[in-house]
Amino acid sequence: MKAEILTIGDELLIGQTIDTNSAWIGAELSRLGFDVYRIVSVHDTRKDILEALSNTVGKSDLVLITGGLGPTSDDITKQTLCDFFNTHLVVNAEVLKMVETMMKRRNFPMNENNRRQAEIPESCRVLKNERGTAPGMWFENKGTIFVSMPGVPHEMKYIMTEHVLPELGHRFTSQAIIHRNIMTYGMPEARLAELLTGFEADLPPEIRIAYLPGSGIIKLRLTATGQEKKLLDKSIEEQVKKLYKMIPELIFSENEDSFEMVIGKLLKEKKQTICTAESCTGGRIAQLLTSISGSSAYYKGSVIAYDNKVKIEVLKVPGTKIEKYGAVSEEVVEEMAKGARELLKTDYSVATSGIAGPDGGTEDKPVGTIWIAVASVKGIVTEKHLFWYDRISNIDRFSTAALSLLRNQIIRR
Amino acid sequence: MKAEILTIGDELLIGQTIDTNSAWIGAELSRLGFDVYRIVSVHDTRKDILEALSNTVGKSDLVLITGGLGPTSDDITKQTLCDFFNTHLVVNAEVLKMVETMMKRRNFPMNENNRRQAEIPESCRVLKNERGTAPGMWFENKGTIFVSMPGVPHEMKYIMTEHVLPELGHRFTSQAIIHRNIMTYGMPEARLAELLTGFEADLPPEIRIAYLPGSGIIKLRLTATGQEKKLLDKSIEEQVKKLYKMIPELIFSENEDSFEMVIGKLLKEKKQTICTAESCTGGRIAQLLTSISGSSAYYKGSVIAYDNKVKIEVLKVPGTKIEKYGAVSEEVVEEMAKGARELLKTDYSVATSGIAGPDGGTEDKPVGTIWIAVASVKGIVTEKHLFWYDRISNIDRFSTAALSLLRNQIIRR
Repeated sequence: MKAEILTIGDELLIGQTIDTNSAWIGAELSRLGFDVYRIVSVHDTRKDILEALSNTVGKSDLVLITGGLGPTSDDITKQTLCDFFNTHLVVNAEVLKMVETMMKRRNFPMNENNRRQAEIPESCRVLKNERGTAPGMWFENKGTIFVSMPGVPHEMKYIMTEHVLPELGHRFTSQAIIHRNIMTYGMPEARLAELLTGFEADLPPEIRIAYLPGSGIIKLRLTATGQEKKLLDKSIEEQVKKLYKMIPELIFSENEDSFEMVIGKLLKEKKQTICTAESCTGGRIAQLLTSISGSSAYYKGSVIAYDNKVKIEVLKVPGTKIEKYGAVSEEVVEEMAKGARELLKTDYSVATSGIAGPDGGTEDKPVGTIWIAVASVKGIVTEKHLFWYDRISNIDRFSTAALSLLRNQIIRR
Repeated sequence: MKAEILTIGDELLIGQTIDTNSAWIGAELSRLGFDVYRIVSVHDTRKDILEALSNTVGKSDLVLITGGLGPTSDDITKQTLCDFFNTHLVVNAEVLKMVETMMKRRNFPMNENNRRQAEIPESCRVLKNERGTAPGMWFENKGTIFVSMPGVPHEMKYIMTEHVLPELGHRFTSQAIIHRNIMTYGMPEARLAELLTGFEADLPPEIRIAYLPGSGIIKLRLTATGQEKKLLDKSIEEQVKKLYKMIPELIFSENEDSFEMVIGKLLKEKKQTICTAESCTGGRIAQLLTSISGSSAYYKGSVIAYDNKVKIEVLKVPGTKIEKYGAVSEEVVEEMAKGARELLKTDYSVATSGIAGPDGGTEDKPVGTIWIAVASVKGIVTEKHLFWYDRISNIDRFSTAALSLLRNQIIRR
């Protein structure tokens, strides 16, 4: 089964909004066995939307459309869908009532824009949207399903999860496509590929491998395609086992599990706690750790010590060490980790001190330099890294490196 | 001038990677006056790439292609480009030397995958890539320019900035398209649209307005299109002035400037300093503030006090207040702001305590509840908000609300 995603909105084309909807929809449809073969973004003009809709004819079993359903005047998708499907807008009493209820609950008055949200193409089936005022719309035309949804991510996800995915799952039993993602860290793509040349050559015909690098992490994605899901499961499992034998020290998780998820699970199991003492990462590590629901079970707090005074006064780093070695040094980052662990009374602490850039680099310590320390009852370990990116990417790499060192310390015996 | 962006890679279609490249390229091309009329993502298979390339024929003056140039076997773009342009791969001595130098600098051995990076379609012009091993490739065919670049964002951006954008700017003088973005916070889209109905009706024909909501912030994008850039500048400036008169309290910046950028500028001007005391936001506010280059001039540090013990012991919040009012309360968030400002010795401090969810809500204090405090020499102000999103979005909204309150306090006389 072939599917296409169509996202509508000038903001996507002029780069004001990053299209995150397509990735989410793509992942969900793949899970159901759809081959998402194309994602297209176009202007919210009648001509461009009609052209994009026409291009799907005869090619897709399913077309999911997001965007262009807001209450404001730049949104014209609904009328264009009417033209394409040869129908017209009518006020839908149920939707009208829902919009009224929602506005009341939020204490906003109803206005003409809100009322227009209740106008729906007559030939479609309405999909309730409990998260916003624009409902989803389900059309069927010459064997193809078209679903139009608002572009606001949490509204689109609600409609997909509540209505679209269950119905698609029910109606289509398809050729099975299985993905397994093995998450690796610590080796660049070309070297990893070289190491896995033999593995790749020996893959059975139903399995493909892809290398997906991002922020220092390389996902190895194995994809198995065939009729019998059980056979595919078994075949892909064999390959995963082989990988674990070949590169055990590089694999840190599976199936998109991030370092912060893995660390959270480990700490929960072990009933241990963590804090951070961050300089150059500026709270990024704390933010990653607390992005996990339930993290209050193991995450106690952090000191972001940007200023050296904070390092000295709050984390009790000896001022003489900062003077002698500089704030970006093994000696200081060790003291930061020690100080935070004592202050916040946790099993583990992770500390960072480095130069994210673009300014502040020297010949000895260029932009991209980071010292990391992890303190625990097992002692203090440190690592130095050098990255070569912009400020935001450097902070990102610093944080990933710190979480990797932390994980290694947690699982060390 | 019409442009199309083509991004290649299975990872985009199955949702493993969010396509951030297109947004960046779209913004840059718009700035040069190109109309980016379509973004298309396809599989990295020969058939799909060829079909997408064929679809551009006769429609675009410029086609920018990213992805599919990595060293591993899932990448086949280069060979497919040869087929499309009727040319073949040859080893490029300059690229080979560059790859060798790069591998040496990073202390990696050369391997066959690296060497394949130096094979380039004969008919293209090579665009140097100092950030990675895959160069950019510039083709011209029947009046259309095609540029193929690696999909790794910082490599693509390097090639665009160093080579592609300068040459495009040089060769094309075009119909002017001007965007102005007015950033508003504090009113939902439909109500804002109602308030601006008259403004919209009175817009001159060369100007369009769009409402772009995201994370509680609504960008109003004014777009002016015409021959004379000077006239457009003047016309759009008049409209912006009108907006400032109509909704002064909602506008916090222009041109995508985020709250953290605006706050950074204000604090630098005033030579004042800031710290944060975060509970539910878990370092997100610190991370936003430190994402700004040069933030060490005004940002001193933070205490992330997730655990109540950290609130009591580090921030000196009286334990009795936590017992009496709960950690999520006006009384406690005030104490947190006060404690952090004293500990970290800054002009301003911003504190948060709330329930991000999905667990931890009560009838009195449901998930999405947040108390915010800002302390300064002007006194302590507090605000309570209630949001209705998932954990990550709630943390995001909490942080935006906190930064908005902080900005209001900084500009208050």
